[in-house]
Amino acid sequence: MNEFDFIKKIRLLAEDRGAASGLVRGIGDDAAVLNSFAGTDVVVSTDLLVEDVDFHRDTTHPDLLGHKALAVSLSDIAAMGARPRWALLTIGVPNDVWESEFLDSFYEGFFQLADRYGVKLIGGDVSRTPEKIVIDSNVIGECLMEREIFRSGAQPGDQIFVTGFLGDAAAGLRLIERGARLHGPAPREAVLSSEGAQANGSHPIDYVLLRQLQPEPRVGWGLLLGHKQLATAMIDISDGLSSDLNHLCSESKVGALIDASSIPIDPLVKELSGRRALDPLMLALHGGEDFELLFAVKPENVVRLPSRVDGVSLTRIGEITEAATGVRISEGSRTWNLEPGGWEHFKG
Amino acid sequence: MNEFDFIKKIRLLAEDRGAASGLVRGIGDDAAVLNSFAGTDVVVSTDLLVEDVDFHRDTTHPDLLGHKALAVSLSDIAAMGARPRWALLTIGVPNDVWESEFLDSFYEGFFQLADRYGVKLIGGDVSRTPEKIVIDSNVIGECLMEREIFRSGAQPGDQIFVTGFLGDAAAGLRLIERGARLHGPAPREAVLSSEGAQANGSHPIDYVLLRQLQPEPRVGWGLLLGHKQLATAMIDISDGLSSDLNHLCSESKVGALIDASSIPIDPLVKELSGRRALDPLMLALHGGEDFELLFAVKPENVVRLPSRVDGVSLTRIGEITEAATGVRISEGSRTWNLEPGGWEHFKG
Repeated sequence: MNEFDFIKKIRLLAEDRGAASGLVRGIGDDAAVLNSFAGTDVVVSTDLLVEDVDFHRDTTHPDLLGHKALAVSLSDIAAMGARPRWALLTIGVPNDVWESEFLDSFYEGFFQLADRYGVKLIGGDVSRTPEKIVIDSNVIGECLMEREIFRSGAQPGDQIFVTGFLGDAAAGLRLIERGARLHGPAPREAVLSSEGAQANGSHPIDYVLLRQLQPEPRVGWGLLLGHKQLATAMIDISDGLSSDLNHLCSESKVGALIDASSIPIDPLVKELSGRRALDPLMLALHGGEDFELLFAVKPENVVRLPSRVDGVSLTRIGEITEAATGVRISEGSRTWNLEPGGWEHFKG
Repeated sequence: MNEFDFIKKIRLLAEDRGAASGLVRGIGDDAAVLNSFAGTDVVVSTDLLVEDVDFHRDTTHPDLLGHKALAVSLSDIAAMGARPRWALLTIGVPNDVWESEFLDSFYEGFFQLADRYGVKLIGGDVSRTPEKIVIDSNVIGECLMEREIFRSGAQPGDQIFVTGFLGDAAAGLRLIERGARLHGPAPREAVLSSEGAQANGSHPIDYVLLRQLQPEPRVGWGLLLGHKQLATAMIDISDGLSSDLNHLCSESKVGALIDASSIPIDPLVKELSGRRALDPLMLALHGGEDFELLFAVKPENVVRLPSRVDGVSLTRIGEITEAATGVRISEGSRTWNLEPGGWEHFKG
């Protein structure tokens, strides 16, 4: 099979999933074509995943990687308060990967997540690389005009919220680096906490490993916040809370004060940290890839927030302040500047 | 400078180019946001360029690579008959490239081409790779509804046309592989033939080298054919005439007969071929990356075609036939099946 035959196969898998409203032309032409509608904005995200920087082939599974490639881009669309609709996926692989079952499993993971949110694969490519796998993932979403939530709308006095738990993905990464591997297959449904994993009968360590290997984008939360106009600014936590809160504050030209004791940390991560000399607060502040949503809400709108969406909890962690006070964190009686400490590809 | 500072610099370069109608949010958020308009379709292309597969760092210049990264995606949009409007560009580089002047020069080449067509950079990223450069290029275009030209609309009897010359880029690649290098800086304006290059005072060999290193997308031709609805099917020649004609015929469920003697080949390529044991017809048929447009036109519309757009010529090379006759080429009294012989990443 050459790549043209393989792309035909993927095209059939995409087309078998039925027609999508608004799709004029999907895979099989020079470009994808979408109908746009008056009153709707088009929201476009792009993410690049590179082997041995963003993932390691021997510590993940191809289907988890297919899931993650889509998840990171869905998370960007969620962070705009938009509805994900279409995906373009390009993957470059070396010969040995091409000749294995890797790609079949990769697309299986991709389609399983895409189907959950009704996202259609409409374009992309398969190509060769000398040695490492590279993946480029685009998701296109739509949003009612002027309903997008930017990073830039936060105002002093707004309350700062975060979905789910922070630090799980970083804890998972540390465990993987120390040799931990999944004990069983990934559950088909997203698991929301280590307690949920235990109730499910799966190994609790798998919960933190999967938070790293198979992150769940907070699509439901993003849609709700966009639709009801409840957030003044939003970002997804990909680099780490400290970095992403600084990004949001910088774009909004505000400061922030967060309370360390309020940061939501899964009980297992606290426990693991004690046993394995990991600092849970450092993981939660500076560990990236949780793909939770961080957002600001006007005080009068706080009562309108649901406590959960799709089972994912919400926690108030602080307040937006004037720009002059900077981005700060308090722990008991101490308060210090929260410097961006998350992921950087290149140090300055 | 870390990557966040670098992205800020690129964002300023993009914003200095002025506001674009329809752009709600460009670089600096989780995703880009575009206004869409009733009656307009959104056309999205994606291309991945990988070092040592699609280019070699030591045989090109960073600014030419920046140009080419955008050009390949502009060419896809042109092949849909659409107007390119927005670009997202992600580049992954290893540490040594990050620490050099590479990226500044790369973006210079990118912006020079983007400015020529009024294309705005609205998103993307800079990230790290272990060793090789990878580039992902998206272009988003727009088209009046139902004015797109797909690969799939050709009918028996339609006349087959191609813009410009074929085989130049493949000849350039062969010369580069044999050690040829540019004699002077690339001219700011696209050169349309080796004769044009000679008239310009530049070295004629540079013309074929630049056809490989700095391809010119046929944006003007694409727009005209889309706007006037003159083509029934269109594709850009990226894999090679033999492959891309087969793609077009397969999508249109038709056959084709082309005439070898009518295929437009630059006089210098003919001459070089004689001197360097390259077969100009083989280069023109199977060499990829010319980024010319290949399209079909109803016989009654042939008279409506201009002979040139932006100085780029047009040549009739054959006719669409019934599917049953297959894709064939005649040379003098011989006729044979034209098998796809262009670029394949993976052989079947």
